[in-house]
Formats: sequence, C-alpha cells, structure tokens
Amino acid sequence: MNATHLVCGGAGFVAQTLNARLLADGGRVIAVDNLSRGKKAYLDGFAASKGFEFYDLDCTNKEALEALAEASGTVGGIGHIWHLAANSDIPAGIADASIDLKDTFLTTFHLAELAKRFAIPELHFASSSAVYGDQGERAIHEDLGPLLPISNYGAMKLASEAQLRAAVEAFLPRADIFRFPNVIGVPATHGVILDFVRKLKATPTSLTVLGNGAQQKPYLHVDDLVDAMLFIASEARSRYNVFNIGPLDAGVTVRFIAETVRDAVSPGAKIVYGSQDRGWIGDVPRFNYDTRRLAGLGWTPKLSSEAAVVKAVAEIAAQESAQKAFQLHRE
Amino acid sequence: MNATHLVCGGAGFVAQTLNARLLADGGRVIAVDNLSRGKKAYLDGFAASKGFEFYDLDCTNKEALEALAEASGTVGGIGHIWHLAANSDIPAGIADASIDLKDTFLTTFHLAELAKRFAIPELHFASSSAVYGDQGERAIHEDLGPLLPISNYGAMKLASEAQLRAAVEAFLPRADIFRFPNVIGVPATHGVILDFVRKLKATPTSLTVLGNGAQQKPYLHVDDLVDAMLFIASEARSRYNVFNIGPLDAGVTVRFIAETVRDAVSPGAKIVYGSQDRGWIGDVPRFNYDTRRLAGLGWTPKLSSEAAVVKAVAEIAAQESAQKAFQLHRE
Repeated sequence: MNATHLVCGGAGFVAQTLNARLLADGGRVIAVDNLSRGKKAYLDGFAASKGFEFYDLDCTNKEALEALAEASGTVGGIGHIWHLAANSDIPAGIADASIDLKDTFLTTFHLAELAKRFAIPELHFASSSAVYGDQGERAIHEDLGPLLPISNYGAMKLASEAQLRAAVEAFLPRADIFRFPNVIGVPATHGVILDFVRKLKATPTSLTVLGNGAQQKPYLHVDDLVDAMLFIASEARSRYNVFNIGPLDAGVTVRFIAETVRDAVSPGAKIVYGSQDRGWIGDVPRFNYDTRRLAGLGWTPKLSSEAAVVKAVAEIAAQESAQKAFQLHRE
Repeated sequence: MNATHLVCGGAGFVAQTLNARLLADGGRVIAVDNLSRGKKAYLDGFAASKGFEFYDLDCTNKEALEALAEASGTVGGIGHIWHLAANSDIPAGIADASIDLKDTFLTTFHLAELAKRFAIPELHFASSSAVYGDQGERAIHEDLGPLLPISNYGAMKLASEAQLRAAVEAFLPRADIFRFPNVIGVPATHGVILDFVRKLKATPTSLTVLGNGAQQKPYLHVDDLVDAMLFIASEARSRYNVFNIGPLDAGVTVRFIAETVRDAVSPGAKIVYGSQDRGWIGDVPRFNYDTRRLAGLGWTPKLSSEAAVVKAVAEIAAQESAQKAFQLHRE
C-alpha cells in the first residue's frame, strides 16, 4: 500500500505498530492524536522517518481535520483513514458517559464526515468484541444477534459501526470493521498485564486479583493484530467488511496471566483472588470468539493466547523496568 | 399507570395519541418538544386537561431538562420517560448526518443521562425497524444479526439502543425498546400517504410514484402502536425489553396505497410508476417483519396493514381538507 494514511489515535498503543508497518510498506503516515492516552514519546522512533508527520489534535475537531486534509490534498490526498482513537478506560466511560460519546463515537462521526467531504475512499475502523456484550457460552461470530453491549465503550463502538454502515450506503466506497479482542504488547498503556506488573513492582510479596481468576479471554499480540488489519484491508473484497480478529484458541484465564506475571516479576509472590466472576461492571466473564471468517480469508495468527501473554508479559515488564531506570536516572 | 410521564417529542405524531392515553389512564404528562416537526396546535385538545403541561425545549438541552426534572421532583418525580423525539425526515438525515446525530441520537444520550441523575426508573424508547437495514427476504425478528442500517436515521436509532443497553447494565432499572414499523394515522406530518394526498390535491389528474410500486411494507395504525407500547410497558418483565411492533400480515404494496389514496381523493387520476425498486437511498424494498415475540406476550393489533391504510387515508384526506378549508377561511 503506497498511499497517504491518516492514523487517528496515531500516538496510541496499536498505532505504534501500525505506523511502523505502513511506513515500512512505503506509505506516508499522518498521525493525529489528542494525547489524552497516547504519548508523543511513543513516536520518537518515527521522528527520522521520511513520510511521517504528527499533529496534536482531537479527531472531533472538524476544522482542524479539514485543514489537515486540505493541506495533504495538494500532495496526493488521503487514501486511507485508520481510526484507532477511543477512550480505552472502560470504567471511566461507565462513570461518565460523555467520555465515550466524544472519544469513541464522535471521533467516528467526524472522520466519516471528513471522508465524505474529501472523497477519502477507505476507512478502517478499530471496533471491539465489546459490541457483543455478555453472550455467555455462545460462539461469537460476526453475524450474531442480538448485540448487547454492557459498557458505554461497547455501545459507542456499536454506534460507530452503525454510522459507518450508513456511510457506505450513502457515499463511502469502503469501510473495514475490525472487531478487536483483548490486544497486548507494548507500549502498554492500560490492561490487566500492566496492572499486575505495576502492582507487583509496588508490592513484590503479593498480587491481589479482581474477581476469582476464572475469567477466560482470548488475547492477541499487537504484532498479529496489525498484521490482520493490513491483511483484511488488502484482501477483503466487500464494500463493508466486518471481521473478528483474534487467536484460534479459546483464550487464557486471568489466573494464567497472574501466574505468568508473578513468575516474570516476583516469583515468590502470593496471589490473592476475589470471589466474584466479574472484575468490574462492563467486564465479560467468558468469551468464545469465532474467528473463522478471518481464517477463511487466509489469515492466521503467529501466536496463541498463551504465547501472546508470555511475550507481552516479558515486554511489559521490560518497559516498566526501563521506566523505573529512567525515573531513577532523573532523580 | 398513575404516574408522571415525561414525553419527549411530545408534540409529534405518535405523541398525540400517547398523551391522550396516558391522561385517560390518570397520568400526569409533561410533554417536551423543540417543535422542529411537532406542532403546538396538535396539543390544543389537551390544553384543558388537568395534568398536562407542554414545554418548548430541545431534548438535547441538558440544563433545561434538568431544571424540568428538578421542578417536577417536588410533586412526585418523573416515573417514566417516553422518548419519541427524532428526525423523521430520512433523506434530510442522509444529506446532513448532523441532523440524525443530534435529533435521533443525542436526544437519547441526554435522556439516559437525565434518568441517571434523577433516578428515573423506566425509559421507553421509540426505536425503528430501520435498525435492521435491508435484510432481503429474511424474517426480521428481534435477535437477528447482523444489523445493517442503511440510513443515518437507522444508524442513530441503533446507536440509541446500544446506549440504553449499556445504561441498563450500569444504572437504569428498565428500558423498553419499541422497534416501530411504518406507522400511519393523524396528525400526519410526513410519509407516503400524506405525500400522495398532497400531490393529488395539487394535481388531481395524475399521481407520480417514486419506484415501481412493488415495494411492500407492513403498516400499523398509530392507535394500535400506542396500545402495543402501553401493553409492553405494563406486561414485559425484563429489565431490557426489545419488541418489534407491527401487524401480523406481510404488509401492503406502494401500489395498494397509491390506489387507495386515488380512490379517496381523486378517483379519475392516472397513477404513473417509476422503474426502480427503491424510492430513495435508505428505503428498504421488501420487509418480512416478525412480530411473534409481541404476540407471545399476548398483544395483537386491531387493524391489518390494509385496514390501517384504508383508515389512515380517510383520516389524512380529511386532515388535508380541513387544512385547506382553514386556509381558505383565512384568506
């Protein structure tokens, strides 16, 4: 893909890997991020890259987006929007619905408007398995109904999908909907592995786990995720493509993650579990994620959930040690 | 239901019938409408009713809604929100997505926020069969997937459902989702019957129909619709209830409607059809609407699609003649 890519949420976790791949493929990357969760430091590695630009702006800022598109139009125009911007703090969004409204849905709304105004032909959207909600033991495939999101995050991802579906009917030549599973790797900004690593570094003798540890979820390493996104963008043939992205296995338990983190960070620590099967409102206890549509298209992940967790734990522990060393160095 | 009802979109088409029923049942009705499509004149019949109040305000006006809830709290508090506010002009919403964003979705967002802040226990939402999109010949039941809205109207109804589903998980004791079919009756503000009546009154010799007339849809009379809404609110037992509301039959064709209007308004007129199977973007050509869930709850409509059309055509023709007489009287 030799083209100009607008990457929204371009200073976030997934974007770091996506930016690198798009640049390696010869693309031009215009990264946009309001730095509410993303960090400019994540982009240090791209500073020297020809074809990389970063803008500190909010993807709901219509005027600024239009000015950017206008400017980039003179050198070829934007060919792809990659929409990765969202509020990833699910409990914060449940406490204050306006966060997900703005960061998770209105970003989509304004990016679709931008695509309309500047005739941008492809919009690739980071949706989420959270659109399904708690489906119990049902196999979760892309055509499943009813969709019952149990967090504002999931609700606003579903709202975004709906907006894009209508956009495809009216003006947008193509939209890809990537329904992300739990994605792990670095730079980690949130999530259960980072929480556990930080807790154990703060209190090396014990690790307290929300819930009883039996929650089981699929996990995908961010390298596999981005590979799947690029594969779908290249190989899927419909104007509106919805794909679950995930590993082929049924996932790993919170207990497995806790033990992997303990073994890597503080092998002598005691792990203390709660009694509930849910850690917090909006958390889904069990998840049977069907990724056969993507397998049928010809893509398979390199790492299983277990292998992804083992790799990510090592990466995140290293990230946090480096952080610590950096802080000590500054003191 | 002896309670205080906040009816948003309270000066619109469906609200006129709902207000009357709620008042007849001994309820107090606080009708709120921004009068973008609703009309104050529709409420003339309630002016003398004890227990009826009207406020000209927008349901996205957070401060005004809160002041209203605060004030009504001192005399018992709002027990029910009936959310009927929406942009009903589907083509206008496709041309300008911000209309459906604000009128169809942000109304829901702010009413859910109001319910949270004032602990309002029940929110009854006028959703739409438009959330399903074009499903071809498939039987459309409430658990169908995938949902593929093809208009911003349908997309923002789906977004609203998602927001309410998450609200039920987090704080809202109960939400009812009514998926409306095409609803007909008076006061008619839009829709195919009103269009045909007005066209024929303007040009009594011929009636031009968008599309080939083969489009078939179920139609429900507004009296039946409101009866179903009240029945569901009273009889359904879940915290989140989703119901298709519609007739038991497969519907009537545009041709049947055109002929019924012609016979009532201008029997000698020639009807001229187009060649496409869709009248406009966002219009669904055929529709197999499954209402067995509602039948299972114990409700059936009094009128079939055919009978509803015959009745509504007579009502709307009378409405338009009265309008004409009123205009002549003023000249």
